[in-house]
Amino acid sequence: MTDAVRAALRAQRIEVPSWAYGNSGTRFKVFAQPGVPRTPQEKIADAAQVHKYTGVAPVVSLHIPWDKVDDYAALAKHAEDLGVRIGGINANVFQDDDYKLGSVTNPDPAVRRKALDHLLECVDIADLTGSRDIKLWFSDGTNYPGQDSIRARQDRLADALQAVYERLGDGQRILLEYKLFEPAFYTMDVPDWGTAYAHCLRLGPKAQVVIDTGHHAPGTNIEFIVAFLLREEKLGAFDFNSRFYADDDLMVGAADPFQLFRIMHEIVSAGALDASSGVNFMLDQCHNIEPKIPAQIRSVMNVQEATAKALLVDAAALDAAQLAGDVLGSNGVLMDAYNTDVRPLLADVRQEMGLDPDPMGAYARSGYFEKIAADRVGGQQAGWGA
Amino acid sequence: MTDAVRAALRAQRIEVPSWAYGNSGTRFKVFAQPGVPRTPQEKIADAAQVHKYTGVAPVVSLHIPWDKVDDYAALAKHAEDLGVRIGGINANVFQDDDYKLGSVTNPDPAVRRKALDHLLECVDIADLTGSRDIKLWFSDGTNYPGQDSIRARQDRLADALQAVYERLGDGQRILLEYKLFEPAFYTMDVPDWGTAYAHCLRLGPKAQVVIDTGHHAPGTNIEFIVAFLLREEKLGAFDFNSRFYADDDLMVGAADPFQLFRIMHEIVSAGALDASSGVNFMLDQCHNIEPKIPAQIRSVMNVQEATAKALLVDAAALDAAQLAGDVLGSNGVLMDAYNTDVRPLLADVRQEMGLDPDPMGAYARSGYFEKIAADRVGGQQAGWGA
Amino acid sequence: MTDAVRAALRAQRIEVPSWAYGNSGTRFKVFAQPGVPRTPQEKIADAAQVHKYTGVAPVVSLHIPWDKVDDYAALAKHAEDLGVRIGGINANVFQDDDYKLGSVTNPDPAVRRKALDHLLECVDIADLTGSRDIKLWFSDGTNYPGQDSIRARQDRLADALQAVYERLGDGQRILLEYKLFEPAFYTMDVPDWGTAYAHCLRLGPKAQVVIDTGHHAPGTNIEFIVAFLLREEKLGAFDFNSRFYADDDLMVGAADPFQLFRIMHEIVSAGALDASSGVNFMLDQCHNIEPKIPAQIRSVMNVQEATAKALLVDAAALDAAQLAGDVLGSNGVLMDAYNTDVRPLLADVRQEMGLDPDPMGAYARSGYFEKIAADRVGGQQAGWGA
Amino acid sequence: MTDAVRAALRAQRIEVPSWAYGNSGTRFKVFAQPGVPRTPQEKIADAAQVHKYTGVAPVVSLHIPWDKVDDYAALAKHAEDLGVRIGGINANVFQDDDYKLGSVTNPDPAVRRKALDHLLECVDIADLTGSRDIKLWFSDGTNYPGQDSIRARQDRLADALQAVYERLGDGQRILLEYKLFEPAFYTMDVPDWGTAYAHCLRLGPKAQVVIDTGHHAPGTNIEFIVAFLLREEKLGAFDFNSRFYADDDLMVGAADPFQLFRIMHEIVSAGALDASSGVNFMLDQCHNIEPKIPAQIRSVMNVQEATAKALLVDAAALDAAQLAGDVLGSNGVLMDAYNTDVRPLLADVRQEMGLDPDPMGAYARSGYFEKIAADRVGGQQAGWGA
Repeated sequence: MTDAVRAALRAQRIEVPSWAYGNSGTRFKVFAQPGVPRTPQEKIADAAQVHKYTGVAPVVSLHIPWDKVDDYAALAKHAEDLGVRIGGINANVFQDDDYKLGSVTNPDPAVRRKALDHLLECVDIADLTGSRDIKLWFSDGTNYPGQDSIRARQDRLADALQAVYERLGDGQRILLEYKLFEPAFYTMDVPDWGTAYAHCLRLGPKAQVVIDTGHHAPGTNIEFIVAFLLREEKLGAFDFNSRFYADDDLMVGAADPFQLFRIMHEIVSAGALDASSGVNFMLDQCHNIEPKIPAQIRSVMNVQEATAKALLVDAAALDAAQLAGDVLGSNGVLMDAYNTDVRPLLADVRQEMGLDPDPMGAYARSGYFEKIAADRVGGQQAGWGA
Repeated sequence: MTDAVRAALRAQRIEVPSWAYGNSGTRFKVFAQPGVPRTPQEKIADAAQVHKYTGVAPVVSLHIPWDKVDDYAALAKHAEDLGVRIGGINANVFQDDDYKLGSVTNPDPAVRRKALDHLLECVDIADLTGSRDIKLWFSDGTNYPGQDSIRARQDRLADALQAVYERLGDGQRILLEYKLFEPAFYTMDVPDWGTAYAHCLRLGPKAQVVIDTGHHAPGTNIEFIVAFLLREEKLGAFDFNSRFYADDDLMVGAADPFQLFRIMHEIVSAGALDASSGVNFMLDQCHNIEPKIPAQIRSVMNVQEATAKALLVDAAALDAAQLAGDVLGSNGVLMDAYNTDVRPLLADVRQEMGLDPDPMGAYARSGYFEKIAADRVGGQQAGWGA
Repeated sequence: MTDAVRAALRAQRIEVPSWAYGNSGTRFKVFAQPGVPRTPQEKIADAAQVHKYTGVAPVVSLHIPWDKVDDYAALAKHAEDLGVRIGGINANVFQDDDYKLGSVTNPDPAVRRKALDHLLECVDIADLTGSRDIKLWFSDGTNYPGQDSIRARQDRLADALQAVYERLGDGQRILLEYKLFEPAFYTMDVPDWGTAYAHCLRLGPKAQVVIDTGHHAPGTNIEFIVAFLLREEKLGAFDFNSRFYADDDLMVGAADPFQLFRIMHEIVSAGALDASSGVNFMLDQCHNIEPKIPAQIRSVMNVQEATAKALLVDAAALDAAQLAGDVLGSNGVLMDAYNTDVRPLLADVRQEMGLDPDPMGAYARSGYFEKIAADRVGGQQAGWGA
Repeated sequence: MTDAVRAALRAQRIEVPSWAYGNSGTRFKVFAQPGVPRTPQEKIADAAQVHKYTGVAPVVSLHIPWDKVDDYAALAKHAEDLGVRIGGINANVFQDDDYKLGSVTNPDPAVRRKALDHLLECVDIADLTGSRDIKLWFSDGTNYPGQDSIRARQDRLADALQAVYERLGDGQRILLEYKLFEPAFYTMDVPDWGTAYAHCLRLGPKAQVVIDTGHHAPGTNIEFIVAFLLREEKLGAFDFNSRFYADDDLMVGAADPFQLFRIMHEIVSAGALDASSGVNFMLDQCHNIEPKIPAQIRSVMNVQEATAKALLVDAAALDAAQLAGDVLGSNGVLMDAYNTDVRPLLADVRQEMGLDPDPMGAYARSGYFEKIAADRVGGQQAGWGA
């Protein structure tokens, strides 16, 4: 069993977002950090550091227009030179003054057209970068009861999704993300997995649901949604992060490591860890007060640890206890895996991969941070608005 | 406009549950009340009082096995004699010791078979009572991570639903209810509308979703679900009640009358108030400390008041303000209706219907309570377990 | 009774915040609006419009350093000329890069000193403006378990509060605000009313608690806290706003008008509506997508409507029903008041006060918005960061 | 360090409740289990099994009137013979029909008197059993807005608490428990720690707060409350259990083991693990579907594991990282302890104590369950209502 576990851990892939290396914050304040990248190229360079020390994060998502460049081939080449490649294309239709009342669901058809054009442009970019995934998250919604027609907005949303779907190339897909609230505070147009699922179902096989682990109501059992969407073959990807309250966007595994383990248990149980499953595992979080590259490294490690524990679950014993109706026994099988200290195993796997067993330490000792802090002076630091 | 509003209010129908007249409580204590019915016949008699004073509650749901009788034709005749009729059949597969680990999703196939047989028996009863609706709520779920396979339980659930679906007669339908938690505390097998919707979609047009207004995670926008399911033609019915915290089962409209209004606004906007829409409006609540018949009368009145306000929304003005992107204006149109005191209008409508304008007072003055308190002595009072 | 109600409504005072007229938003986007003020003087001019049309909002809170000026006497004179006056001083220790890990609870003593100096400066300003209230809200907290010592931060907080308390002049007081989360996501240093209460109790009679209606965990019964703090004589003020999810900062009464009514019912029941009670009623909300002045006018009206309903509660009947243990009767007394349409009463009261009965319409017709939109071109619009 | 950790683990004491061995359930169904005790004596015998295999659970709480006996000296002797002793006395004023509208806060003075008499009787019993702790949890509250006066109920509560306080003997104390909701659904009279704290403060040093880990609003940071009450010297005890949603009463550590660790970290950091701190650690949970004795054993082990991890936190390193403002470093120190597999350490400690290293296995092999299942036939099984 150990060999298979090690192999699975070596083969695991975690995508990192270009925007995690830029400044982020809350509505109250964005705290600037030294060394923060100013260009898409610098963001990719930082992302490459995460892969360099973990060995399992070779893919970087882009956010458009934040990462717009003139020459995507050159950007791809830049990534390749740094040992990584470009992943999903994330559309941004929430930062233009025109989108105050929505993008594709805006009551104004001109705004809807503008938003749709941006989505289609994202598919164009995906063609250029060779990306499979067009990730769509809409901040669209309303703040006040009566502000707009819930139903009309669904109709407008369905129209836009259909137009993007029709534009997809071979091997491309829509990943549709849902979120309970924020930035809209009465309705979101895609508030929950059911809404995303229903739209994806109507669109067809090239549309799947994204689960962002911070986008649920309190008390939501996320691993249930994981298991359900896997059964329906509609789980496309994760946006990993963690939260104590709302969409806190903390490092994945930081707030509730047991939840992350339970999610990975559903993934492993369903055979969905393998890349062939089509489930994409991505980080999407905000490092408001902690340094960004180490925070990404730690996050990747947290996912690895949860995965290792999930791989160590004794599936046969679990199955037997479940079928026997042995409540404490079956729970005990799961907890045995969770309570295992998998850090030595992961250190071993890293050494097998030619990596330092201690990614956090290795990065800290590398001098990279000191270098970028010194070099990246002047210019506009990247951030959510840049 | 007023005439149409009055006509709609006269035509409104609210189904009441037989079990609302029995004792109910929390896990801490069930407080007994004088005059509580001891038989299905007495429950129906109490339900008939609610209709007598409100004029819009002529249908009574049954709960099986709580309301099992030898002769359903006689029971239907009894109801008819009292001016009401029998409505939906609610299956109960949660009060047998065999169901400790689930009913149709139990890991033990013998228990699953027993549960399914009960569901099929409910269809038999529906045939006898002429009921359209077979309402399925499952307490099934797990309390501990690992206790059972989330996915296997979905497979078992789908099998049972399919078997019931195939058994349905012409004009019958499955109403599938979801609930976030309680009595299971880790997973529920149908925890949210998305799960219920997905199962109903696979089953076909004779399966629809029930929204119980107390069965959601904190912060869930229920009227969004209403609007969405109406758009998908998958909204079958409501179980009305209200809550401050969890599934408190308070009188509908008591905890958040504005929410009830918003729900009815979506109903009215979509033309779903009319019986022809197929949406069934039912009460399902627990009168733990308040007297039961007046609590039902008050609940019916609360639904009527929310409905009246929804009918008074100036749809043209709302539409215009929404399309103009006038946030405060459109919200203002909605609030104008909500802030209207509709009690005089409803008193008028009642008088047009030959009823006392004050249902609570009329019932109190009728002496019915004093009579049942005196008559119904001895025997086992009805309750959740009886 | 009506005369007393009218008198109470005429005497009601609602303080408005200077910052409500500036741009605000979420971490995703701040949408700019035309006509937004660029200076404290322009903010006060806008606030004066709210008073002009409602007659009950003659006081404007300042936020320091957002509203820093060289000459506070001149600012006070400017307000007076516009028919309003300066109210509470709100300290801001959350928008300086030094405060990334906290202000008065920061592990670094130099940062703590800087923050405390700012708080003391706010008392200086209060001396100059003649303000009674020094309102303290701390964004301080931690994002990750272990990040800092919960207890040490309480010690630091207590020290800072003590220093400010000792600096207070005669007739001044500390108003201490609490908040569950945001911008910190693991601990807030003053997360709930209990924490604020305990600190205020130790400080003495010149420290009281502020209830911001958007700062609680889901399900929190705010009116209970109101009643409890009034009984303890520790309720100092409200920051009114409303929310469906978290600290949404919507217009007060927009999300749950019944909750606002219940809060005002506790206020009225305890005789705390009168200015002599020392309870300050303030708005603190963000008009992200709606025009700011009308949103403030509507918010003042919402508070007035809830207050009018609370004043209409038949206290004797309520008391009698409560003591008789009449659950439905006592609830019915409360609901009778809530269900009353008080808009005609308030229109009358406004006319008695020499105001237009329709404040929203009167403002819209005044041409003020068109004027400021034309005049206030160029310069830096005010906002949370300006 | 290891020696101190081992010593602390050997010295740890966890109190178990007599009622955990009886049947429990939800309002939907109580599932009976074989071998469940029928008398207080049999409950104590079962509790003694938990101590026999864990070595750290020698104290059993009683619930009055559930555990009323004629001769408490004999009951204490019975416990002693089984190797355990009687701990806190838990008052029950929620299961009498008179308490429908409250016990000590009931609007009816006769009911209040009855409830108070019961509380005083509990002190009498504590005198007889030599118990230090009188634990008070009140189900009192209201279901509907307006049902009763929030403030009047606080006055009544304060009166009752004062009367009990005055009756306390030397060395006795009141432990006051709070709960957000259930069984009351609008207000609870002691809904949160702030309310309990304020009452205890007024009473004096012999009144302290109990934290039941399942009694909070979603998102509440329990370890903050722990740290705060320890700083105020007002933390008296824990009722341990765990929850995903509301007061689920699952086995402690089952739903969120990381949270339990964080709580124990605050305890250990403040030196409150030691018995001399006066903090009592008790289990209070419902084993609805799992066998009761093994569930208690597992729960004790879960507390031990969280404690062991908390004891392993490198306090000096944590302190240094916190003071340096090293967010990732300080979090990393805490996580290092949490990620350690402490099961081998605890197995060792058990062997040092002369116990089987595997308590679950040892109990299962003992044949005790088979014996009680065979012996305890006939009679009324103990449960919440018995």
